[in-house]
Amino acid sequence: MNPTTFVLFGATGDLAKRKIYPALYHLYIHNQLPESFSVIGLGRKEFNDATFQAHVKQSLREFYRLEVQEDDTLQAFAELFGYNILNIDHTGDFVRLKERVEGWERGIDGQANRLFYLSVAPNFFGMIASQIEKSGLGTVSGWKRLVIEKPFGHDLASARELNSQLSQAFREEEIYRIDHYLGKSMVQQLEALKEANPVLQALWTNKNIANVQITADETVGVEERAGYYDQAGAVRDMFQNHMLQLLMMLTIHAPHNMASAEDIRLKKKQILEALDPLHRPDVHEQIVRGQYAAGQVQGKPVQGYASEPGIAPGSMNDTFIAGRLHIDNYHWRGVPIYIRTGKRLKAKSTRIVIEFKEPLSSSAPADHTYVPNLLVIEIGPNEGITLQLNTKDPERKGEFKPVHIDMYPDRAEAPEAYETLIQDALGGDSTFFVHWDEVELSWQWVQPILEAFAANEVPLYPYEAGSHGPDAAAALLARDGYHWWFDEPSESAASASANAAEPEQAANVEEVTVV
Amino acid sequence: MNPTTFVLFGATGDLAKRKIYPALYHLYIHNQLPESFSVIGLGRKEFNDATFQAHVKQSLREFYRLEVQEDDTLQAFAELFGYNILNIDHTGDFVRLKERVEGWERGIDGQANRLFYLSVAPNFFGMIASQIEKSGLGTVSGWKRLVIEKPFGHDLASARELNSQLSQAFREEEIYRIDHYLGKSMVQQLEALKEANPVLQALWTNKNIANVQITADETVGVEERAGYYDQAGAVRDMFQNHMLQLLMMLTIHAPHNMASAEDIRLKKKQILEALDPLHRPDVHEQIVRGQYAAGQVQGKPVQGYASEPGIAPGSMNDTFIAGRLHIDNYHWRGVPIYIRTGKRLKAKSTRIVIEFKEPLSSSAPADHTYVPNLLVIEIGPNEGITLQLNTKDPERKGEFKPVHIDMYPDRAEAPEAYETLIQDALGGDSTFFVHWDEVELSWQWVQPILEAFAANEVPLYPYEAGSHGPDAAAALLARDGYHWWFDEPSESAASASANAAEPEQAANVEEVTVV
Repeated sequence: MNPTTFVLFGATGDLAKRKIYPALYHLYIHNQLPESFSVIGLGRKEFNDATFQAHVKQSLREFYRLEVQEDDTLQAFAELFGYNILNIDHTGDFVRLKERVEGWERGIDGQANRLFYLSVAPNFFGMIASQIEKSGLGTVSGWKRLVIEKPFGHDLASARELNSQLSQAFREEEIYRIDHYLGKSMVQQLEALKEANPVLQALWTNKNIANVQITADETVGVEERAGYYDQAGAVRDMFQNHMLQLLMMLTIHAPHNMASAEDIRLKKKQILEALDPLHRPDVHEQIVRGQYAAGQVQGKPVQGYASEPGIAPGSMNDTFIAGRLHIDNYHWRGVPIYIRTGKRLKAKSTRIVIEFKEPLSSSAPADHTYVPNLLVIEIGPNEGITLQLNTKDPERKGEFKPVHIDMYPDRAEAPEAYETLIQDALGGDSTFFVHWDEVELSWQWVQPILEAFAANEVPLYPYEAGSHGPDAAAALLARDGYHWWFDEPSESAASASANAAEPEQAANVEEVTVV
Repeated sequence: MNPTTFVLFGATGDLAKRKIYPALYHLYIHNQLPESFSVIGLGRKEFNDATFQAHVKQSLREFYRLEVQEDDTLQAFAELFGYNILNIDHTGDFVRLKERVEGWERGIDGQANRLFYLSVAPNFFGMIASQIEKSGLGTVSGWKRLVIEKPFGHDLASARELNSQLSQAFREEEIYRIDHYLGKSMVQQLEALKEANPVLQALWTNKNIANVQITADETVGVEERAGYYDQAGAVRDMFQNHMLQLLMMLTIHAPHNMASAEDIRLKKKQILEALDPLHRPDVHEQIVRGQYAAGQVQGKPVQGYASEPGIAPGSMNDTFIAGRLHIDNYHWRGVPIYIRTGKRLKAKSTRIVIEFKEPLSSSAPADHTYVPNLLVIEIGPNEGITLQLNTKDPERKGEFKPVHIDMYPDRAEAPEAYETLIQDALGGDSTFFVHWDEVELSWQWVQPILEAFAANEVPLYPYEAGSHGPDAAAALLARDGYHWWFDEPSESAASASANAAEPEQAANVEEVTVV
């Protein structure tokens, strides 16, 4: 990799401390950073290079997923870091930044590249991009890239406005939008598993699949994010981005020689384009929203959403959303796709369940004891793939019983999402980043939901904290003759605890401290 | 079940001792025998009821697969047994037998049924059937059934001759032909697994399957069976019966409501009818025969076949046979089916390997590191089903590697083949017995091989004992671009040792002591 300056806005914030520094350290000790590499941290805090380096080291000790060796390597890593105080309103601060970057670049050979990482609230994105452009920071001898985190807008219009601001300074192919669900190891494996296993490919169609269930259940409540969350709701916080990304990653049929990011992203876009559009009068039929009431989560009594600190009294915000979607293409036509996500639910689990069709009911024995075959892809907090088949008791007069088969038994420790994502951004591989087309089409699909929610055209069902969510979510599937497959402790999940170390704190990444 | 007399010819023989008595005992202690049940053992030895009962008890102690409880139950079981001396040439012996059976039947309520079990050499089958008929033993108020063991003839003509003798006394639906491979737990599970798992059904076609390999490799040599074996060879001893039965059981597509034995047997017959016929001039192209030479088996030096005691000097007998077959029907057209069986091979293993197609080679990346998906059905000595998939190292820049997935992890101790087969014969379920049509069509298909072997139109390849067999067997697959998947120790096989207790001594069942 060519010499690169990693320019980090929001360097004293939470995301940088928890995710970015540990990821850079991991890449460093595994020789996966450019040989000439420099990080310039930016913030309003009164750090200097030395105190910033100490801050970085302390972050590693607290948040790196493995033990940090207190050795020369750690010191050499810390010395990659410099710090500039920066107020994004001050053009002068950007000029000083530019001088510092250019100073470092004069010391290296070959083309110099700049990666701008905006670990700040999205309302600053436009201004920062504009200052980069105006100050000349955006003029590079090599490449420049912009890495940003969701949320990308609050609705379709604001997303377009944000994008138009960014595109003053960066071309689409220079923008790396992080959706950290795309950095999860199981999500990144999905395509590879299908590519390498014709057996899975053969099953991956509407001929064999009865329905798909994509869920991200949380046990936590709104926590410290009340201010943001009460404006966003589950629909913006999870559904429009993470859930639709999981949907796309699952349902694309990529070409086998899936070398290029463009191929993958084109296929993802085509999925969104093939989604049956949701019209506002139909939202109440296809979408269920809920809000948690008081209850018990894992034995602990918890208060209802409306009583949480920072939540507007009488808030009609959604903490739960479930939807029924349909992809009208060759592979998926006729397969209902159910999505569910919410807070204060019974168990923490991000997973995809593929339910296979049963034999024709006319020909199956009426008294059969078998259950549908399931392929369960567990994404978090455990990782794994299990196949549920029916086996017969060898004392063969017995009944069938379902067994869970661990299809991914040799799991080593999975990398942190930010490790692979930062590595990819440095290496220019945009496969697992979100293209503008996806952002725009997602908002477009979701927009009628936002409007119907705002106009109260959809009932807001209360649900007891610690439950499986409102009954209406069950009814959504019952109409089609199905039910949700909840996370039942499978053997594989139990044995996968080695991987439970992967922190799900990433759900907090929106709570970055702004510069 | 109705009152039944179990009339056992060859009651002092090896098969009775090793298999039949332990199986009856198992059924007895599990209440799976008719309430009114009596066994009359027949032989030329000078037993009386008491010494015979002692012999039966001793057989259990030696050969029952679990521990025998020395209790009242054992005594009550032994008292079900009576013994008559019988010489099959003596019509008087049959008359005395009839009187004894009728005497017992007078003591019971309802219809009386008779099961004649011929645990004797097949050259006695015809005579016994005729004596049963002539003596009036075959005249029953309930049902009568005949249970016989293979071999069913030595070639097509002798099989027809044998069948014509039997059919003087028994109708086809009264004849239960045992092929003990059909009693093996995994073989009996094949249909049930497909029936209950649409995922497997979906994969079970030529769209997804590249080839099928059915193997029964033995490490033993000819042992004490030289006299029989040197006349039979692998083609008669294994191929015509066990191997073709495995082929049928694997490849039938039974209706989902597979209630009836007739359905299954009709489907099996249709498979044999759909086999591309083998013409004698083509035998040398589709069939490989071999004979083991001296070598080492599992570290122990062993002599060559021709030097074994009891083998004719210069014998051209086959101890190995491999073939390439093709079923010309909707499901299997285009899928080569390879069969291999032999003695003194590297490892003991009866298994079916289904190799799935790879992605089109034009679209797979040239440097891909994955191997074909395999479904491996291990029938003996271990039992299990494993699926071999490719997974990617979670450090995702890595290569693919194959993993074996145990699809049958909850295996309990499987029943002995003879337990289920005798139970089925008593209950009148002929699903896992061999119909005459199958015997006849199998011999018909094999007949050109017998003739070509006899006329030395096919090379007899020597192979080193302890090897994988002659190179010509590898060449048979290489022509199609495939290779044999040999039994590599999979994790599941290793963990399945609990089941390794199932004895493969059944391979000796032909060695019955004649009356």
